Amino acid sequence: MEFVITLDRNGKGSLQRQICEQLRHAILIGRLLPGQRLPSTRLLAQTLGVSRTTVLQSYDQLLSEGYFHSSQGSGTFVCQQLPEELHNPIGRNWEIHKHESPAPQFQLSEFGISLTDAQPFEPSVPPVSVRFRFGQPDLDRIPLKQWRKLWSRHCQLNHLEVFDYAPDSLGYRPLREAIAQYLARARAVHCDADQVIIVSDPLQAIDLLTRVLINRGDQVALENPSFVDIRRIFLAYGAQLCPIPVDESGMQVKQLHELPEGNTKLVYVTPSHQFPIGVTLSLSRRLELLAWAKSSGAMILEEDYDSEFRYTGCPIPSLQGLDPSAPVIYIGSFLEALFPALRVGYLVAPHHLIHVLARAKWMAARQAPLLEQYILTDFINEGHLERHIRRMRLLYGKRRQVIEQALISAFGQQVTILGEKAGTHLTIRLQSSLSDTSVLNRAMQVGVGLMSTRSFYLNNYQLSEYLLGYADLSEQKIQTGINNLSQAIKSN
Amino acid sequence: MEFVITLDRNGKGSLQRQICEQLRHAILIGRLLPGQRLPSTRLLAQTLGVSRTTVLQSYDQLLSEGYFHSSQGSGTFVCQQLPEELHNPIGRNWEIHKHESPAPQFQLSEFGISLTDAQPFEPSVPPVSVRFRFGQPDLDRIPLKQWRKLWSRHCQLNHLEVFDYAPDSLGYRPLREAIAQYLARARAVHCDADQVIIVSDPLQAIDLLTRVLINRGDQVALENPSFVDIRRIFLAYGAQLCPIPVDESGMQVKQLHELPEGNTKLVYVTPSHQFPIGVTLSLSRRLELLAWAKSSGAMILEEDYDSEFRYTGCPIPSLQGLDPSAPVIYIGSFLEALFPALRVGYLVAPHHLIHVLARAKWMAARQAPLLEQYILTDFINEGHLERHIRRMRLLYGKRRQVIEQALISAFGQQVTILGEKAGTHLTIRLQSSLSDTSVLNRAMQVGVGLMSTRSFYLNNYQLSEYLLGYADLSEQKIQTGINNLSQAIKSN
Repeated sequence: MEFVITLDRNGKGSLQRQICEQLRHAILIGRLLPGQRLPSTRLLAQTLGVSRTTVLQSYDQLLSEGYFHSSQGSGTFVCQQLPEELHNPIGRNWEIHKHESPAPQFQLSEFGISLTDAQPFEPSVPPVSVRFRFGQPDLDRIPLKQWRKLWSRHCQLNHLEVFDYAPDSLGYRPLREAIAQYLARARAVHCDADQVIIVSDPLQAIDLLTRVLINRGDQVALENPSFVDIRRIFLAYGAQLCPIPVDESGMQVKQLHELPEGNTKLVYVTPSHQFPIGVTLSLSRRLELLAWAKSSGAMILEEDYDSEFRYTGCPIPSLQGLDPSAPVIYIGSFLEALFPALRVGYLVAPHHLIHVLARAKWMAARQAPLLEQYILTDFINEGHLERHIRRMRLLYGKRRQVIEQALISAFGQQVTILGEKAGTHLTIRLQSSLSDTSVLNRAMQVGVGLMSTRSFYLNNYQLSEYLLGYADLSEQKIQTGINNLSQAIKSN
Repeated sequence: MEFVITLDRNGKGSLQRQICEQLRHAILIGRLLPGQRLPSTRLLAQTLGVSRTTVLQSYDQLLSEGYFHSSQGSGTFVCQQLPEELHNPIGRNWEIHKHESPAPQFQLSEFGISLTDAQPFEPSVPPVSVRFRFGQPDLDRIPLKQWRKLWSRHCQLNHLEVFDYAPDSLGYRPLREAIAQYLARARAVHCDADQVIIVSDPLQAIDLLTRVLINRGDQVALENPSFVDIRRIFLAYGAQLCPIPVDESGMQVKQLHELPEGNTKLVYVTPSHQFPIGVTLSLSRRLELLAWAKSSGAMILEEDYDSEFRYTGCPIPSLQGLDPSAPVIYIGSFLEALFPALRVGYLVAPHHLIHVLARAKWMAARQAPLLEQYILTDFINEGHLERHIRRMRLLYGKRRQVIEQALISAFGQQVTILGEKAGTHLTIRLQSSLSDTSVLNRAMQVGVGLMSTRSFYLNNYQLSEYLLGYADLSEQKIQTGINNLSQAIKSN
């Protein structure tokens, strides 16, 4: 154990007395915890640059005072109960100090202030037995055997670069190549490896892009409804948000033309599976959006959310690949295709922005975890990723059928399922006389967790619109959840 | 393999012809690479929602045109050499498009513009045989056996939370507790686990803190010289930098009093082992700095760089722990104590800032790698970290002696070694008629890499001042490196 105390060699009291006092104090304020083993006298003497005898005498003193106890052969420990506690019941921990000396309030930046609003920020998760979460892959199906095999391949002492600093902040070059090729074949993204930057997740991509592209007061257009976290990032950097409504063909691109000309710097869009509604941006709207961006000078941020999981019809190629001369930044991750704790996502940007994005990334996050990048490279190049996605597409597709059927048989005409047969969640509208809050509360009482889409709307929100994720739930759980939900809503 | 193409069912040309055209195009522009295996006809038919016969006919067509070749039993592949190449030597790759359609230049934000200066940003590393790098632990000594054992403990399918989203952005709670206790005993930091936020590294900590605490135009005081990357972060957010000189007792705190009153929001300081000079901030200066911060309303950012490695005298407790009521944010990492690719560092902030920092972190990076956090928790709690640090302290201490002796026997009176016997690098001043550039060039010619400290100075830089890291170099390499350096400098 490392332990640091300050000795004043010219101060009052012998070194032994100073050591005793400081150890006693360390125990009383909680720096040393009950039962904690102390450094050996030899080690502490060496650390403090004093004789071993001095430390031995201090330890003996504290043993006799009842602060320490020793155990033959296994060392010296802080006592479980201390002399003071017998006289003074206030206990020992940092709390004492917290109240003694409150830290002065510090003035935040504009950015900081914008983060202090009253709205809850991180998701609260009351305990329920069936939670219809979105963005949640089935963790029981992680291809862990392959992943462990690749981990063992790379976590070797003869392969030291995986433990070192990365040579740049763009990411492991072979992974950038593997991703560029994967996106070219699977998503028709038009890019080379130079354009791929490894980030930890889509939020980090949006955060970097917003900082590099947006000044306070600039306009950002985005689908309404849309991800709350994304909106928060734009707002925190002082963007003016322009919500654009969504219909069955996706973002109503025509409305972009009504914004004050030349003022919109960014358009954020989820064309494959609009979040949260689940519709797909039609080809004609895609072409219109690209043309508008080219003429207005705005940059499109395409988050290709849920594109891996499409259960009917033809896959839709990315917006980015439709027109290589249009200003599009493409963003994706492996959160859903593999697992959320994998902190390796990517953005694909035009060549002229790579340099400045690399610098912003260097400052904010430097390098993504290297070992994971090595593993993922092999995982993609050896075909495991695409095989795993295909397996999960079958599994999630089946679960999608089950939840649709369960909803229809439980709610009949009173439920409308929105969007395409794709992704890992669906959004419904319910005909019900109950308020959204009542529905959520009743659901929770029968152990079912679902979300209203209300928080995703900037304005004109829809009543009785709910989002249900199903990818990580067994068919049995889906059935039970929907049945319980329907009984809870229909009961009086 | 996943492959996506767009079919226009109402368009011109049969589906078979459209498939042929798109596959041909995909090969020509590099979406499909020479030698790449194609999806099976069954799979592609299923993906595109067309009959298998249609796909079979398309494949046959491309086989006969020479784009594909097939190999009995192992599938169909893109040919290594294509029909076009025989006639057109320009080759195929995205480069063609890059020049055809340059992306329009996009106007950057103020933050973005500040990152585009001409100064080189990421370290360039010409090949040398002895590189005296700073901040570089000896990777051969990573406690990999322990680390692998703990990895196996946590990377299990019955332990799914390590693959999931983290419940918050503050970090894994038991790790925050382990770090709070470690810092309390080893560094006398005064904190509880609530105050500890897990970040990827000190740069991320500084980036988050700057965003949350600094508006454009605010003053930030910092040691001169100091880390280049830290300065870049402050500048990118529009801070006015106030360089404060450093002498043998550390930052000249008195000069803070001469700054315009109340305008300085942050003071950045490396008190344990000033970077790059290597001096320690004296106790009287520490107390003066804390008092000044309390009266002026500024926040102190204490980066406890290199504090693990002190080879003589008594360890110096942290600045943060000296006065629990002073406004100090403490920053540290395991980059040097363990290995640089471990993306788990920490900051310790006053309670009232935790909430807003957690939100800023959520947006910029959400969660640090979870598995590494679980491993590190056990690594600390089971005593491996402190044992490893002690072992490395002996090793690096020996190397420190060797480099000092080598420098003195090579340069005698012409070398001055600055700072304390601590850390993983030392800084020297050389008496030499050569310019810094000549010294570095001559060194490189004999295979030795070292740095001038010039880039670390905001103003008043020192001529002939160099920084030499030694922690990852064997005694033999250190000897060779210093000998070669001295011969290169002394030769005509």
